[in-house]
Amino acid sequence: MEKSRYKIGLEKLSEVDGNAGDQVIESLKDVAPDLGRLIIEFTFADIYTRSVLDLKERERMTLSCLASIGGAENQLRVHINGALNVGVTAKEIVEVFIHCAVYVGFP
Amino acid sequence: MEKSRYKIGLEKLSEVDGNAGDQVIESLKDVAPDLGRLIIEFTFADIYTRSVLDLKERERMTLSCLASIGGAENQLRVHINGALNVGVTAKEIVEVFIHCAVYVGFP
Amino acid sequence: MEKSRYKIGLEKLSEVDGNAGDQVIESLKDVAPDLGRLIIEFTFADIYTRSVLDLKERERMTLSCLASIGGAENQLRVHINGALNVGVTAKEIVEVFIHCAVYVGFP
Amino acid sequence: MEKSRYKIGLEKLSEVDGNAGDQVIESLKDVAPDLGRLIIEFTFADIYTRSVLDLKERERMTLSCLASIGGAENQLRVHINGALNVGVTAKEIVEVFIHCAVYVGFP
Amino acid sequence: MEKSRYKIGLEKLSEVDGNAGDQVIESLKDVAPDLGRLIIEFTFADIYTRSVLDLKERERMTLSCLASIGGAENQLRVHINGALNVGVTAKEIVEVFIHCAVYVGFP
Amino acid sequence: MEKSRYKIGLEKLSEVDGNAGDQVIESLKDVAPDLGRLIIEFTFADIYTRSVLDLKERERMTLSCLASIGGAENQLRVHINGALNVGVTAKEIVEVFIHCAVYVGFP
Repeated sequence: MEKSRYKIGLEKLSEVDGNAGDQVIESLKDVAPDLGRLIIEFTFADIYTRSVLDLKERERMTLSCLASIGGAENQLRVHINGALNVGVTAKEIVEVFIHCAVYVGFP
Repeated sequence: MEKSRYKIGLEKLSEVDGNAGDQVIESLKDVAPDLGRLIIEFTFADIYTRSVLDLKERERMTLSCLASIGGAENQLRVHINGALNVGVTAKEIVEVFIHCAVYVGFP
Repeated sequence: MEKSRYKIGLEKLSEVDGNAGDQVIESLKDVAPDLGRLIIEFTFADIYTRSVLDLKERERMTLSCLASIGGAENQLRVHINGALNVGVTAKEIVEVFIHCAVYVGFP
Repeated sequence: MEKSRYKIGLEKLSEVDGNAGDQVIESLKDVAPDLGRLIIEFTFADIYTRSVLDLKERERMTLSCLASIGGAENQLRVHINGALNVGVTAKEIVEVFIHCAVYVGFP
Repeated sequence: MEKSRYKIGLEKLSEVDGNAGDQVIESLKDVAPDLGRLIIEFTFADIYTRSVLDLKERERMTLSCLASIGGAENQLRVHINGALNVGVTAKEIVEVFIHCAVYVGFP
Repeated sequence: MEKSRYKIGLEKLSEVDGNAGDQVIESLKDVAPDLGRLIIEFTFADIYTRSVLDLKERERMTLSCLASIGGAENQLRVHINGALNVGVTAKEIVEVFIHCAVYVGFP
C-alpha cells in the first residue's frame, strides 16, 4: 500500500517534471533514499493529485513559495521547467516573479 | 501624473479589498502617508493592473507569498478577505495553504 | 489504510502533545479538515514514528526550526509544551534558544 | 572580568533603550537569566560599543534587520523606541521601512 | 512620463552602481524587460531619490536587509560594490555585517 | 582575558570542526579579522562550551537552524562535517533534514 502511494507519486512527478524529476530522485537514492520516497509520496501522491487547483495553478504557487523563501535557485530551476511542462507560459512565469516582488522585494 | 497613478491604484485597491483596503491606507495616513501612497501606486497601480495573470491568480499567489514569509498574520487576514472578494473560493484558499505546506512546512 | 495512518498519527500526537494537540486538530475541523488530517498523517504518522532520533531529540530540533523561521509564537508554545511532555527539561529548552541565537540572532 | 563585560553592556543598554531595556532583562530573569546576560554582554558590550558606526547608524540598521526577518513586532517596538532615544527622527524611521520595502516587500 | 521615471531611475542607478547596474539591467532585457523597468522606476526613481536618508545610509541599510534575508550572495556582491561607490568604507561594510549578526546570527 | 576567551574558543572550534574551522577563520583574517574573533569568542567560547546540551545535540540543532533559514549551503557543508566529527552518524544527519522538512518544507 505504501508502494502504491509511491507509484501514484512517481506518475504525477513525471507528469510535472518529466525527466528532471527522475534525476532528482535518482541523485537522492544513495545518500537519502527515505527523503526521496517521502517527497514522492507526500508531495506528489498526497498533494499534487488533489483536486480544487490544477497543475498550472499549483506550479505558479510553487514558484511564488520558492521566490518568497529565497536561496532556492536549484529548486526554482526545476520548477520553472515543471511550470513550462504543464503549460504555464514563460510570460506568466516572469509575471509571477514581478507579482511576488510586491511582497518579498526585488532580491 | 503621479496623482493619476494614485487614482488608478485606489480604484484597483477597492476592487480587490473593498473597504478593508481603505482602512489600511487610512490608518497609515498620520504615521506614514508616503508609505501608503507608495503601496497604492506601486502595488495596485503598477502591478495589480498588469495583464497576463488575473486577480484571482494574483490573490492565490499573494497568499502563497505571505504563507511563505511567515509572521504576516494581519496581511494574511486582509488578503484572505481580498481573495474571497475577487472570487477565490474558501476551499481554494485552504488548498493554497495545503499546497504551500510542501515548500514551507506546517508552521 | 489511509485511516490507519491517521490512527497511528493520532496516537503519536497525543504521546507528544497530550490534549494540546487534540485542540489544534479540533479547531481545524470546521475550516480545514484536510489540513488537520495531513498534519496527523504526514507529521505524526510518517515522520515522528521514524526511528534513528527519539522524541526528545525531535522536539529539540522542532524548537530549533521554529526559532529559526521566526513569527511562529503559537507553534513555539505548543511545542514547548510538547517538549516538556516527552521529557525535555526547561533548562534544555532555554539552552536550545541560546544555542540557536548563534545562527539566527537574538530577535 | 565577565562581570565587567556585563556592566559595560548594561550601561550601553540604558543609553540605547532607557527603561525599556531594563524591563526586557528583568522579564528574562526568572525564565532565562543566562540568555539575558548573553544579550547584554554580546549585543551591548561587544557590539554596540564598537566604533566605526555610531548609535544612530546602528539603530537604523537594527530596524532594517528586524523589518527584513519579519514577525518581530515586539522587537521592532523596542527598537523604534531605542532609535528615537539615540536621536533618529520619526521621519527617518519611516524612511528606513520605505527603503527596506524594496528588498523585503510590503508585508 | 513613464519614460521620465525610467530616466531618473537610470541616472540614480549609475550614480549608485556604476557599470555593474547597467549589466544587471542588460542581462534582464531578453528574459524579463518589464522586471528591469520596474526595478529602475520603483527602486531607483521612486525610492533612492527620496531625501531624509542619503545614499551612504541607504546602502548600509540595503546591506543589512540582504544579510538578513539570506541567500542573496549575488545581490550582496552588487551592493557591496554600490556601497563602496557612494563612499561607504570597507571597514564600515564589515561593521554592518558584524552588527547584523546580533539580529540574524552568524550564518 | 579577551585573549583567553579567544583561546578557549579556538580549542572548542578545532574539537568541533577540525581543520575546516581553521580554514574559515584563516579566510576571514584579511577581510574581517574582528568578525573571525567574534565568531570564535561568542560562538565557540561562550556558547559551545556551555553544559546542559552536548556537542552532538548542538550540531543536530545547528543543522536544524541552517536548514530552516535556507540559502546557507556552505555553512551546512561545514556543519555536516562538524556533526560527523563529534559523532553524529550520517543516518542521523539525513534524519535531521527529514524531520525539519515538516516545519520548513522540502526546498
